[in-house]
Amino acid sequence: MYNIENHPWKVLSSEYIFRDGPWLNIRHEVVELPNGVVIPTWYIMDFPDWINVIAITKDGNYVMESQYRHGIGETHLELCAGVIDEGEEPLAAAQRELLEETGYSGGVWEEWMRLSPNPTNHSNWSITFVAKGVEKNSEAHQEKTEDIATHILSESELLEALERGEIVQALHAAPLWKWFARNSIGKTAEQHNR
Amino acid sequence: MYNIENHPWKVLSSEYIFRDGPWLNIRHEVVELPNGVVIPTWYIMDFPDWINVIAITKDGNYVMESQYRHGIGETHLELCAGVIDEGEEPLAAAQRELLEETGYSGGVWEEWMRLSPNPTNHSNWSITFVAKGVEKNSEAHQEKTEDIATHILSESELLEALERGEIVQALHAAPLWKWFARNSIGKTAEQHNR
Repeated sequence: MYNIENHPWKVLSSEYIFRDGPWLNIRHEVVELPNGVVIPTWYIMDFPDWINVIAITKDGNYVMESQYRHGIGETHLELCAGVIDEGEEPLAAAQRELLEETGYSGGVWEEWMRLSPNPTNHSNWSITFVAKGVEKNSEAHQEKTEDIATHILSESELLEALERGEIVQALHAAPLWKWFARNSIGKTAEQHNR
Repeated sequence: MYNIENHPWKVLSSEYIFRDGPWLNIRHEVVELPNGVVIPTWYIMDFPDWINVIAITKDGNYVMESQYRHGIGETHLELCAGVIDEGEEPLAAAQRELLEETGYSGGVWEEWMRLSPNPTNHSNWSITFVAKGVEKNSEAHQEKTEDIATHILSESELLEALERGEIVQALHAAPLWKWFARNSIGKTAEQHNR
């Protein structure tokens, strides 16, 4: 057994040193640890919460995307993902982003996973949904700053892409590996029960 | 089959708008998309590369940690993790951090996974190692700003913690879910072959 205790720091001062709408907001804090040590500089980034979607078509394929990512200068397979608008429910944001970016909608949705992009210096969370039985009901409607390609992958193609390390975004790799772990664990249990 | 094309943006200007040693460095760039659209503001954070470790003892238990994380104000189970020092090899950084934070060392190490914390606005990477057969050869040597608890979990305790969503850091959840997916897939294959 293990026991996790939470020993929060005391915030001695907190002020925004950078604000630019939804793009980047940085707080500078002076904090005091439970042992009395003062850290004079701690940065926290306040982004909106994010969503992403493991979207599976009626015939069992996966709706994936790719787009150029300027932080690393590369393009890789990704889940459909986006930002939750102010006042929007996470599920509504996920359904909106999937429709806008890929044209897929419908199906049965459930919350799958809740992750922190970085609990050290990000205050926001990312929520993953699984959508089973989606269909292409319309065209994608991308903004002029978006250049998103949609890719329909079979289950084995997606697992092979994961195995080759092609899904590099941690917030996407975690829910997908959880998906395949659960599927495999489920299959193992079924075989035990046969 | 799917085909991923890389269409890099053109950088029209790039300058640091914030620099604070290893803690936070932000570049502001003006970029031009392949379709000619100019985005006047793109922020990229330059952190050093990071490492973390799935450390397994000789008797098959997992060396986990917990510490207060001020971005979310919570404490959760984590892998041993840290920053690669300038000029340091990733493996050496991982072995150094495990020894400093937990006192465990030795064993057989292999690279397990390479992830981007956020390919949109982070330029750095996080590399996960698996260390099999580590032993507690010394005491932990933490800095006075560190308050890290070590937790030794059995494999089933760790899987249950993952299932309950207790490992919230995406860079830690992804390699751990990959670990359990591989183990389960391996077990499934073994059962097929019996």
